[in-house]
Amino acid sequence: MIEVAIMGHGVVGSGVAEILRTHKKKLFASVGEELHIKKILDLREFPESPFAERFTKNFDEIINDVEIRVVAEVMGGIHPAYDYTKALLKAGKSVVTSNKELVAKKGAELLEIAKTNNVNYLFEASVGGGIPIIRPMNQCLVANNVKEVAGILNGTTNFILTKMFNEGMEFDSALKLAQELGFAERNPAADIEGHDSCRKICILASLAFGKHVYPDNIHTTGITNITLDDVKYAASRDCVIKLIGDVKVLPEGKMDILVAPMLVSCHSQLGTIENEFNGIMVRGDCTGDVVFYGKGAGSMPTASAVVADMVDCCHHLKTRRYLFWADSDNGNVIPYSESETAMYVRISSDYSESVLIKAKELFGELEVLDSGDKHNEIAFVTPVMKIGEIDALLEKLTDGKAEVSSKIRVSDF
Amino acid sequence: MIEVAIMGHGVVGSGVAEILRTHKKKLFASVGEELHIKKILDLREFPESPFAERFTKNFDEIINDVEIRVVAEVMGGIHPAYDYTKALLKAGKSVVTSNKELVAKKGAELLEIAKTNNVNYLFEASVGGGIPIIRPMNQCLVANNVKEVAGILNGTTNFILTKMFNEGMEFDSALKLAQELGFAERNPAADIEGHDSCRKICILASLAFGKHVYPDNIHTTGITNITLDDVKYAASRDCVIKLIGDVKVLPEGKMDILVAPMLVSCHSQLGTIENEFNGIMVRGDCTGDVVFYGKGAGSMPTASAVVADMVDCCHHLKTRRYLFWADSDNGNVIPYSESETAMYVRISSDYSESVLIKAKELFGELEVLDSGDKHNEIAFVTPVMKIGEIDALLEKLTDGKAEVSSKIRVSDF
Repeated sequence: MIEVAIMGHGVVGSGVAEILRTHKKKLFASVGEELHIKKILDLREFPESPFAERFTKNFDEIINDVEIRVVAEVMGGIHPAYDYTKALLKAGKSVVTSNKELVAKKGAELLEIAKTNNVNYLFEASVGGGIPIIRPMNQCLVANNVKEVAGILNGTTNFILTKMFNEGMEFDSALKLAQELGFAERNPAADIEGHDSCRKICILASLAFGKHVYPDNIHTTGITNITLDDVKYAASRDCVIKLIGDVKVLPEGKMDILVAPMLVSCHSQLGTIENEFNGIMVRGDCTGDVVFYGKGAGSMPTASAVVADMVDCCHHLKTRRYLFWADSDNGNVIPYSESETAMYVRISSDYSESVLIKAKELFGELEVLDSGDKHNEIAFVTPVMKIGEIDALLEKLTDGKAEVSSKIRVSDF
Repeated sequence: MIEVAIMGHGVVGSGVAEILRTHKKKLFASVGEELHIKKILDLREFPESPFAERFTKNFDEIINDVEIRVVAEVMGGIHPAYDYTKALLKAGKSVVTSNKELVAKKGAELLEIAKTNNVNYLFEASVGGGIPIIRPMNQCLVANNVKEVAGILNGTTNFILTKMFNEGMEFDSALKLAQELGFAERNPAADIEGHDSCRKICILASLAFGKHVYPDNIHTTGITNITLDDVKYAASRDCVIKLIGDVKVLPEGKMDILVAPMLVSCHSQLGTIENEFNGIMVRGDCTGDVVFYGKGAGSMPTASAVVADMVDCCHHLKTRRYLFWADSDNGNVIPYSESETAMYVRISSDYSESVLIKAKELFGELEVLDSGDKHNEIAFVTPVMKIGEIDALLEKLTDGKAEVSSKIRVSDF
């Protein structure tokens, strides 16, 4: 019997307890011993839970219990999860987590502490919910130089964008529906402004390239400015709009990493991912493109990934899993203005014809999109250029006489 | 330095040697030591190879070399790979392989020998080429009861079917093109008759359900009978035809496993997988549907999976990876006649109208497909029934007066 503890009994934590109860036989077959929940830490009371008598409000009961070998931290947030995790690792206990915020902000430090103490810190559930991605990238793709990782990493925003595309819903209505269906939080800022996706692409980038990428200062645009007009223009060139976390390694070894909405071909693997589903593409030099698809959130999918990590810790109670990245100062991340892309641009102007002529002069070749009967609007796709150059040309182009209504990156996948 | 050997210097084997040479730094970072090729076994001569002086034609030089700890068996076929693998495992060496035929036919025995000798037998590359699938299923999805695994497991047939759908090519021309492009062997039987897919779904089923499923006696239909008429009928109901390996666990614990072409919705995750790509869907009780996508064959993708397994063996030279299934007699596989599905049926008859009336009497509700101007043909989709029942009703229906031209399963995904 291996004693484990769970910190947090919310959406994910209650799922972890449930899986350990309902999948006991399957887990026993893999580990060769029972994973037995000794303590569950939560400040609330759960008198109806089958584990009611194992709840504690006191972290000391976990940290001081030498029998507890593996702890699932599913509290979320930085405090007190960060201090608790540090203490547990230093006490020789392995920790698994779904806490993407903590891993994105403190991953390098916590991995270093785990290494020093010869225990494991695993976080399969922090990206992609139930989709296997951390372990496959770390182990299965180890014989590849990863060139790019791009993903739809947030189910809420993908649900909203799908409703806008498939049903012509306005952003606000789609957000409201997502909230009603439980896909979006009452305060949806972290999702719709892209911060959740940013944490996840930072974790994937850190893993793929071996150096911590911190989410502060990473360019992050959300989806709040996407309109049904953009939806129509995108559809006219056989594209959807997806919120993409993307990291590329440039030839000189620098990293181009960002979160932004992108026009993605309807026929590409990421373009066909709809509703609350997530998908992550990993571009390796040997494998080519590999894509992982599934539910990126939810109690049971995420909890099943947490439990799988607990099993892995049980298999490696005395040895370390080879999951590690070094600290860094984000010095190898290029400024956003140097990121290269084609850009879809929509411009409102009463002088649309002359603006279009000037745009062609400034940008050279342009893919002009049909504005239909909107005579005071033009829309086009620029050639692939640096963002800074595009912005400078747009500044020249509009020059007080016109307004850029939309500016959305066009993906090359 | 960890000494390794490679048996076979064909498409995959030469890729393995190449990756060990070109990705030395990355592999060193993961293992902490160099993976050094000591011997390559092949009956041919490769004087131009950078490893020319390490080639041997004599297996004894590998089995008797105590320094060699890990061996990649990438010869393919049963003999002599089977005897060599047994001998290596018994000699305390870990073996990794891309040899799906050997794993499908002898996996349980070889896993047992590996277990007895406390070494590893890994085969990530045997299914899905460079797509991570064996390890994610075995580790990441360990907290799930898998209910179904369904996949496009063969790139050659998927390429042919894609050409038939997207370009209206006849089967023969598409096969010829696949051969010209190197996607199909000169003798394509194992691919187009479904045997390659059968081996792979047997490996996935064995892994998912813990008991060996042998490919003999598993119902296997290939794609040689698919015509452009079938393509049109499928398209008329927004479907493509894909060669699917499928295994489901039935409520009573029995297994429904088969390889057959299926009508699959264009909008589903497997329906959008085109050309030589593979995709595998795993349906777990906690995760829901998870899909893995990528190149299912080719030198570098497959070799990168072989090398990843070699790295895993190096991490676990003294411990076992928890990859195992027990032997079985296929006794838990239901007969194909009891497999349940909806079926697309196309019937040629000079009395098509009366055949259709009779079909409606026999099957009850029918989804009738539009035959256009073909007056001597009807096409319909049956309700979900047992194959045996469908066949019996079709027998009654045609009764010498009509001929079943096509009969293709309709997937429920």
